[in-house]
Amino acid sequence: MTSGVADGRMPTMLRPLSHRGGSAASARRAQRARTVGSLLRSVASFVIYGVAFVLVLSKLGINIAPILASAGVVGVAVGFGAQNLIKDFLSGIFMMLEDQYGVGDVVDLGDATGTVEMVGLRITTVRDVNGTVWYVRNGTISAVGNSTQRFGVAVVDMPIGYTADVDQAAEIAGEAARQAVARAPLSDDVLGEVETLGAQDLTQTGITLRLTVKTKPGRQWAVRRALTADVKMALDTAGITATAAA
Amino acid sequence: MTSGVADGRMPTMLRPLSHRGGSAASARRAQRARTVGSLLRSVASFVIYGVAFVLVLSKLGINIAPILASAGVVGVAVGFGAQNLIKDFLSGIFMMLEDQYGVGDVVDLGDATGTVEMVGLRITTVRDVNGTVWYVRNGTISAVGNSTQRFGVAVVDMPIGYTADVDQAAEIAGEAARQAVARAPLSDDVLGEVETLGAQDLTQTGITLRLTVKTKPGRQWAVRRALTADVKMALDTAGITATAAA
Amino acid sequence: MTSGVADGRMPTMLRPLSHRGGSAASARRAQRARTVGSLLRSVASFVIYGVAFVLVLSKLGINIAPILASAGVVGVAVGFGAQNLIKDFLSGIFMMLEDQYGVGDVVDLGDATGTVEMVGLRITTVRDVNGTVWYVRNGTISAVGNSTQRFGVAVVDMPIGYTADVDQAAEIAGEAARQAVARAPLSDDVLGEVETLGAQDLTQTGITLRLTVKTKPGRQWAVRRALTADVKMALDTAGITATAAA
Amino acid sequence: MTSGVADGRMPTMLRPLSHRGGSAASARRAQRARTVGSLLRSVASFVIYGVAFVLVLSKLGINIAPILASAGVVGVAVGFGAQNLIKDFLSGIFMMLEDQYGVGDVVDLGDATGTVEMVGLRITTVRDVNGTVWYVRNGTISAVGNSTQRFGVAVVDMPIGYTADVDQAAEIAGEAARQAVARAPLSDDVLGEVETLGAQDLTQTGITLRLTVKTKPGRQWAVRRALTADVKMALDTAGITATAAA
Amino acid sequence: MTSGVADGRMPTMLRPLSHRGGSAASARRAQRARTVGSLLRSVASFVIYGVAFVLVLSKLGINIAPILASAGVVGVAVGFGAQNLIKDFLSGIFMMLEDQYGVGDVVDLGDATGTVEMVGLRITTVRDVNGTVWYVRNGTISAVGNSTQRFGVAVVDMPIGYTADVDQAAEIAGEAARQAVARAPLSDDVLGEVETLGAQDLTQTGITLRLTVKTKPGRQWAVRRALTADVKMALDTAGITATAAA
Amino acid sequence: MTSGVADGRMPTMLRPLSHRGGSAASARRAQRARTVGSLLRSVASFVIYGVAFVLVLSKLGINIAPILASAGVVGVAVGFGAQNLIKDFLSGIFMMLEDQYGVGDVVDLGDATGTVEMVGLRITTVRDVNGTVWYVRNGTISAVGNSTQRFGVAVVDMPIGYTADVDQAAEIAGEAARQAVARAPLSDDVLGEVETLGAQDLTQTGITLRLTVKTKPGRQWAVRRALTADVKMALDTAGITATAAA
Amino acid sequence: MTSGVADGRMPTMLRPLSHRGGSAASARRAQRARTVGSLLRSVASFVIYGVAFVLVLSKLGINIAPILASAGVVGVAVGFGAQNLIKDFLSGIFMMLEDQYGVGDVVDLGDATGTVEMVGLRITTVRDVNGTVWYVRNGTISAVGNSTQRFGVAVVDMPIGYTADVDQAAEIAGEAARQAVARAPLSDDVLGEVETLGAQDLTQTGITLRLTVKTKPGRQWAVRRALTADVKMALDTAGITATAAA
Repeated sequence: MTSGVADGRMPTMLRPLSHRGGSAASARRAQRARTVGSLLRSVASFVIYGVAFVLVLSKLGINIAPILASAGVVGVAVGFGAQNLIKDFLSGIFMMLEDQYGVGDVVDLGDATGTVEMVGLRITTVRDVNGTVWYVRNGTISAVGNSTQRFGVAVVDMPIGYTADVDQAAEIAGEAARQAVARAPLSDDVLGEVETLGAQDLTQTGITLRLTVKTKPGRQWAVRRALTADVKMALDTAGITATAAA
Repeated sequence: MTSGVADGRMPTMLRPLSHRGGSAASARRAQRARTVGSLLRSVASFVIYGVAFVLVLSKLGINIAPILASAGVVGVAVGFGAQNLIKDFLSGIFMMLEDQYGVGDVVDLGDATGTVEMVGLRITTVRDVNGTVWYVRNGTISAVGNSTQRFGVAVVDMPIGYTADVDQAAEIAGEAARQAVARAPLSDDVLGEVETLGAQDLTQTGITLRLTVKTKPGRQWAVRRALTADVKMALDTAGITATAAA
Repeated sequence: MTSGVADGRMPTMLRPLSHRGGSAASARRAQRARTVGSLLRSVASFVIYGVAFVLVLSKLGINIAPILASAGVVGVAVGFGAQNLIKDFLSGIFMMLEDQYGVGDVVDLGDATGTVEMVGLRITTVRDVNGTVWYVRNGTISAVGNSTQRFGVAVVDMPIGYTADVDQAAEIAGEAARQAVARAPLSDDVLGEVETLGAQDLTQTGITLRLTVKTKPGRQWAVRRALTADVKMALDTAGITATAAA
Repeated sequence: MTSGVADGRMPTMLRPLSHRGGSAASARRAQRARTVGSLLRSVASFVIYGVAFVLVLSKLGINIAPILASAGVVGVAVGFGAQNLIKDFLSGIFMMLEDQYGVGDVVDLGDATGTVEMVGLRITTVRDVNGTVWYVRNGTISAVGNSTQRFGVAVVDMPIGYTADVDQAAEIAGEAARQAVARAPLSDDVLGEVETLGAQDLTQTGITLRLTVKTKPGRQWAVRRALTADVKMALDTAGITATAAA
Repeated sequence: MTSGVADGRMPTMLRPLSHRGGSAASARRAQRARTVGSLLRSVASFVIYGVAFVLVLSKLGINIAPILASAGVVGVAVGFGAQNLIKDFLSGIFMMLEDQYGVGDVVDLGDATGTVEMVGLRITTVRDVNGTVWYVRNGTISAVGNSTQRFGVAVVDMPIGYTADVDQAAEIAGEAARQAVARAPLSDDVLGEVETLGAQDLTQTGITLRLTVKTKPGRQWAVRRALTADVKMALDTAGITATAAA
Repeated sequence: MTSGVADGRMPTMLRPLSHRGGSAASARRAQRARTVGSLLRSVASFVIYGVAFVLVLSKLGINIAPILASAGVVGVAVGFGAQNLIKDFLSGIFMMLEDQYGVGDVVDLGDATGTVEMVGLRITTVRDVNGTVWYVRNGTISAVGNSTQRFGVAVVDMPIGYTADVDQAAEIAGEAARQAVARAPLSDDVLGEVETLGAQDLTQTGITLRLTVKTKPGRQWAVRRALTADVKMALDTAGITATAAA
Repeated sequence: MTSGVADGRMPTMLRPLSHRGGSAASARRAQRARTVGSLLRSVASFVIYGVAFVLVLSKLGINIAPILASAGVVGVAVGFGAQNLIKDFLSGIFMMLEDQYGVGDVVDLGDATGTVEMVGLRITTVRDVNGTVWYVRNGTISAVGNSTQRFGVAVVDMPIGYTADVDQAAEIAGEAARQAVARAPLSDDVLGEVETLGAQDLTQTGITLRLTVKTKPGRQWAVRRALTADVKMALDTAGITATAAA
C-alpha cells in the first residue's frame, strides 16, 4: 500500500515542482513558472521603487509620516495574511527536528490518513487508501498519529450473542488466536503473546470480546483481518454466533 | 465528467471576466465594470487627496498627529479586513509553486469536490458531480486531496452474511475480480494485481470483505463499480449473500 | 422558481432601500432614515469637534499624548469592530470582478441556497425554495456553488433490491432513460447522452444504480425528477424492485 | 402568532428600558439605573482624574512614558473587549440601512427564529413559536432569512409507497391541490398556480412527491398545512398510501 | 421551581462572596480572601515599585526604551488575556441597561437554561431543572431567550396514525383542548383562544397535529402537559391512536 | 463518590508539586525541578544580558532601533503565546472571588464533570465517576455547573406505553413516590414534596411521565435511582408497562 | 499495555532525535540535520547581515524608518506565526511544574488517549490502544485526564429487561460482584467495597443497573471486564436477561 518515491527521499521544499514527467507536464511547469515569476517580479519592483521613492521624498524634507501610515495598512494586512505561512514552516521545522514521521510511515494527520510520500517544510504529502494524494499544510496538524513506530497492536473485537457464556467464548477465541499466530503467515508478523481481555462491551443486543496481540510495525491491520477470520470460524464451530438465537 | 476550457488553460487572475459569452453577458460585464470602476476611482481619489491634504496641513505647521490617529483607525480596519485577501493570494502562489493540482484533475478541497476548471491565484474553480461550479477561496483550503496523480486504488467493500465462510468467500471474490481485470474493458485501466485483504469489518449483522487493485489515475471509480457488479454476481452464484439467511 | 426584479438588475449598494412599496413602507423608510441619520450626525460632530478640541489644546502647548492614548483605545475597538465590514466589501468587490454569479443564478452560499435576487457589495440577496429571502454577508461566504453555468448534470440514483442482477437492471434503466430524453419534454433540456455508471453503492440492504445526463443550466432538477419516474416504471415493469423480496 | 408592540413601532436604542409596566418593574428599573449609573460615574471619574494627574506630572517635567505604557495595557484590554459592541452597532446600522426586516416580519436569525418584536441598533428582539422572547446581538447574525417579503412558497412533501405509480399519484395530488386553492379559505392566500414537481426523492422505503404554490407573505405555513390534509385525503381515496403495502 | 435569594435581590458584583452561611463557609471565605489578597498585594507592589524604579533610571539619564519594550511584552499578554474580562463586564452592563432578564425569569443562555438566581455584571447565575446552579460568563452569551415576558405559548404536538382522517382528528383535538382550557385549573393560566393549526408534519409513519394557546408567562409548560393528557384521552375515546393500526 | 485530600484543603498554586508520595515520585520531582529550573535560568540570563548589552550599545551612541525591532518580534510572539496563561489566572482569581465552587463540590466544567479535588489559580482538578483525575485550565471554562449548592432536584422520567391512561398512571406514580420519600432511607435526603408534573413527552411509541422532588445537595442522584425503582414497581403492579402491549 | 522507554525516562526536548536505531535511521537523521541546519544558517545570516546593513545606513545619515517599516511587516508575520510555539512551550512548562502526568501514566489529552511515552516541553508522546504513537502539541491540550492517580473506579453498567424486578436484580448483581472481588485474581486489584447504585437508567426497552468499585490505579478496566462477565453469569443463572422476553 505504500509507495516510495524511491530515488529521492530527501525532503526539499522545491521537490513537488519536478515530480511529474512528460512534455505536457513540462509545458505546464513552464507556464506556471512564468505566472508566478512575473507576479513576484512585479511585487519586488513595487516594493523597491516604493522604498526608494519614500527615501527621496524624505531627503527633500517632506514629512513622510502620512505615507508610511498608508503603507502600514498594507503591511498589517500582509503581515497577518502571511502568519499562516510562517506557522506552516515553523511547524514543519519542529516536526522534522523531532522526527515525528518519515517517508513510508503510515500516519494520521487529522485532515488525511495514509502513507507519507514526502516530508516538506510547508506541506506533508500523504497517499490514502484510495490512492488519493493529500497535500496537508504542516501548520494545520495539531496531533500526529504514527502507526509504524517500533510495534503495532492488532485489536480484534468479536461480537457474540448475549446468551453466550463469556468465559467459554473468550477461551475458545483466545485458543484460536494463539494457534493462528503460531502458524506460518502470521508468526512472522507477531511480536508477542495473544492477550484475551474478555468482555469489552455488553449491551442489550450482544457482547463484544476483545483480543490483542503485538505485531511488527505496519502489520497490525493484516494480522487483525487474519485473526478475525480464524476466531470467527472457531466460534462458529463451537456454536457461538453473533446473534442471540444460536 | 471533466470538461476542459480547452482554448485557454492558462491560469490567470483575470480569467473569469471573459469566460461567458453572448451579448447579455457582455452587457452585464460592462455594467459590473462600471460599478467596480467607479468604486475604485472614488477610493483612490479619497486616499490621494487625503494624503495631500494632510501633507499641506503639516507644511502649515499644524500638528497632524490627531488626524493620523483617526486615519489609523480606518487603517487597522482595512488592514485586518484585507488579511483574508492576502491569505488567499499567498496560498494560491504556494499551491501553484508546489503544483498541487492542475486543470482537469479531480480534487477534494474540503468545501467542494470535483474536476478543476481553473487554477487562479485567489480562487480555484471546481465542477462537481452535479455540474455545479464551485468558486473556492484558496486561503480556506487546509488540505488538498488529488485523486489523479500517477495511480488510483479501486477499493471494493462487499457485504456478506455473518454465517458465510470468510476464507471461501474471499477466495471466490478474489477469483472473480482477477478474471474481471484480465478481460477487455478493465484490463486497460488496471495497473497491478488484485489484492484480497479479507474480512475488513465484522459486526453482529454481517461481514465486509475488501479487495483492492491499483488503477490508472481517474479510473478507480469505474473499476470499482465494474468489480462490484462482477464480484457480487460470483458470490450470488456461489450462494453467498449479503444477509445471514442464505 | 426564480423571480427577477426585472426592471432593475443593476447591482447597487443602495438598492434595498427602495424595493418595497406602499405608504407604510415609505413611512417606515422615513423613520429609519431619521434614526440612522441622527446617529451618523452625532458621531460625525463628535469626531470633528473632538479633533478640533485636541488641536487647540496642542496649540496651547499642552501635552496631548495622554488624550491621544485614550482616543486610541476607542480607535482600536472601532477598527477591530469594523474589520467585518471591510471584509464584506472586499469579498463583494472580488466576487463581482470574478463574475461568480449574477441575478437569476441558482447558487449555494453556505448559509443559504436559492435564486440570486440581488448582488450587492456588502450583501447578496437570495430567495430559497420556501420563498424566504436571505441576506448573506459577502464576507461569510467561503465557497460559492453556482448551478447555472454552461450546463448541469442530472444524477439519478435508483435503489434496487440486493438480489437483482446488476448488469440487467443497469441496461433496463439506461434504455428507459435514453428513450425518455429522446422524447419531447426532456429532449429540449438535455445536452448529451445518458451515461449508465452502474452499481454506485452496495450495502446489505440493496444496490444503488446511477445514471447521469448533461442538461441545460438550471434544468438538471426537472430532468432528474422526470427520469426518476420513468426509470422506476421501467424497472417495475421488469419486476426489479427496491426491496429484496421481488 | 405575531404580536405588535402596537403603540410604539419606532426602533430606538433605549426602548427596552420602558416596555414593562407595574410598580415592581419600576422599582427594579430604579435599582438597575442606580447600579449602572454608579458604575459609569466611577469609571468616568477614574478616567478624567487619571488623565489630569498625568498631565500635571508631565508639566512637572516627569517622564510619563512608563505610566502611559501601563495605561496602554488597560487600553488594549478595553479596546479588544469592546470590539464586540462596535461590531453589534455597525451590523445594526447596516441592517437598518438595507431594511432587512421590520417589526412583525417572521425572520430566521440563526440563534432564533420568530416574529420580530423590536429592531434595535445593538440587539434585535424576536418572539419564537413558544412565546419565548429572544434578544439577539446584531453582530452575531451572519445571514438573515426573512419569510415575509412580497410572497412565500408553500412546499408540500407527500410520502407515498414505493409500489405506487408516480405519474398517476402526482396527477391526483396536483388535482386535489388545485381544487383546494380554488376554494374559499385558501384562495385568498394563494398568489399563483399549483406546480406539481413530481418525485422529489426516491428511496428503498418510499417516494416523496412535491407540490409548490406561491402564497401571500406569511401565509405559506397555513397553506402548506391545509394542502397537506387535502392531498392526503385525495390519495387515501385513490388507494395510494404512505407505505408499500397498499 | 424558582427560588429567590429573598433578602437581597439587588445585583451586586460582590454578592456571591456572602451568600453561603455557616462557620465552615466563613473559614473557607477567610482562606480564599487571604489567597486572593496576597496575590493582588504582590502584583500591586510589583507594578508600583517597577514603575518607580524605571522613573529613577530615566532621571539618571539611562535610556529606558529597552526596559519599556520588555515590559510591553508582559503588557500585551496581560492586555490580551484580560479582554475576556472586559467583554464580560461590557455585556453585563448592556444586558442590564436593556433589562433582558431579572431574578426569577426562566431564561435560555445557551450554556445553561433555568431560573435566574442572580444578575451580576460579570456572571449570571441560573438554576436548572435538576437544581444545578450555573455560573455563566456574560460575554459568552450570544442570544438570550426569556420565556417569562408578557405571555407564553403552549404548543401541543400530538402524533396520530397515518390512516386517520386529519380534519376529523383536528376537530376532536381542538374541541377537547377548548373544553380543557375552559375548566378550572387551566382557565386561570390561559390568556387566549385555542388555535388548531392542523397537520404540522406528515411522514411515512404518521401525522403530527398541532394546537397552540396563549398562556400567562411561565405557565406554558404546565398548560402544555395538561392539554397533552386531555387531547390524548379524547383521541383515544374517538379511536384515533398514534400508530396506523387503529 | 467524593474524596477529600483531607489534610490539605487550602487551594495553593504550588500544591500539585507535593501531592504524590514515595521515593520514585520524589526522584521524578527532583528531575522535573532540574529540567524546568535550568530552562528558567537560561531564559532569565538571556533576557538580563540582552537588555544590558543593548543599554551598553545605546551608551556607545549606536542606534538601537533595529535591534529593538528584532526583539519586538520575539516580544509579540511571547506576548501572544502567553495570553492563555493570563486568561487562566484571571479566570481563576474571579472564580475564587465569586466562590463558584470549593473542594468536594460536584461540578460540570464542560471539559470534565466530577468532584472537585483542588481549586488552583491556573487549573482546577476534578475526579470524575471513573476515577480519572482531570486538570482543567480555568480559562477554558465558559460556564460552571455546581450541583451541590443549597439543594438539588431529583427528576424521575418514567416511560409508559402509549395506550395507558395518563392521569391514572400519574396518580399511581405520584402516590408511590410520596410513600417512598416518607420512608426511612429517603426521608433524610428529601427537602420538599413530590411534584407530579404529568405527561412531559408524548411520541408515537410512548409517553414519559415526570416527577420531581427537592433533595439535599448531592443526594439528587441517589434519590432519583431509588424513586425510579419504586415508581416502576408500582406501575408494574398496576399493569401499566413501558410498551403499548400491556 | 504500557511500554516504558525504560532506559531513559528523563523528559528532554531533544529526546526524539535519538530514539530510533539502525543505520537507515542514522542516515535519515543526518539528512534531516543537514536540511534543518542549512535552513537555520540561512535565516541567521540573513537576520545578522540585515541588521548590520541597516545600522550602516543609519550611520550614513539615511532615514531608516521606511526600511524598518518593511521589516516590521515580516516581524509581525513571524511573531504571529510563532505564537503557537510559545504557547506549546509555556503549556509544557506549567504541565511539568504541576506534575499532571509522567511516563507510563494512562492519559486522555483530547486529541489522543493512551500511555504516555515521553513528556516534552513542546510535545507529549502517547501510545494508544492500537499501538499508534501520537505526538500531541502541549498548547492544544485544554484538559488532561489522568486515569492512573492514587485509585481508579470500575463502573459496571449491566442492561436488564424492562420486566425484571429492579431491587432483586440489583441484589443478585451486587452479591455476584462482592464474591468476585473477594476471590484471588481481583482481590489484589480492588481497594474498596462494591457499591450497588441501582437503576441508573430506565427506558422503554430496558433498565441499566450500575455497580462501582474502587481499584488500584490502571486496573479499573480489567476489573470492569471481569466483573461484567461474573455479574452477567449470575443474572443469567437467576433468569434475568437483557431483553424483556425472559
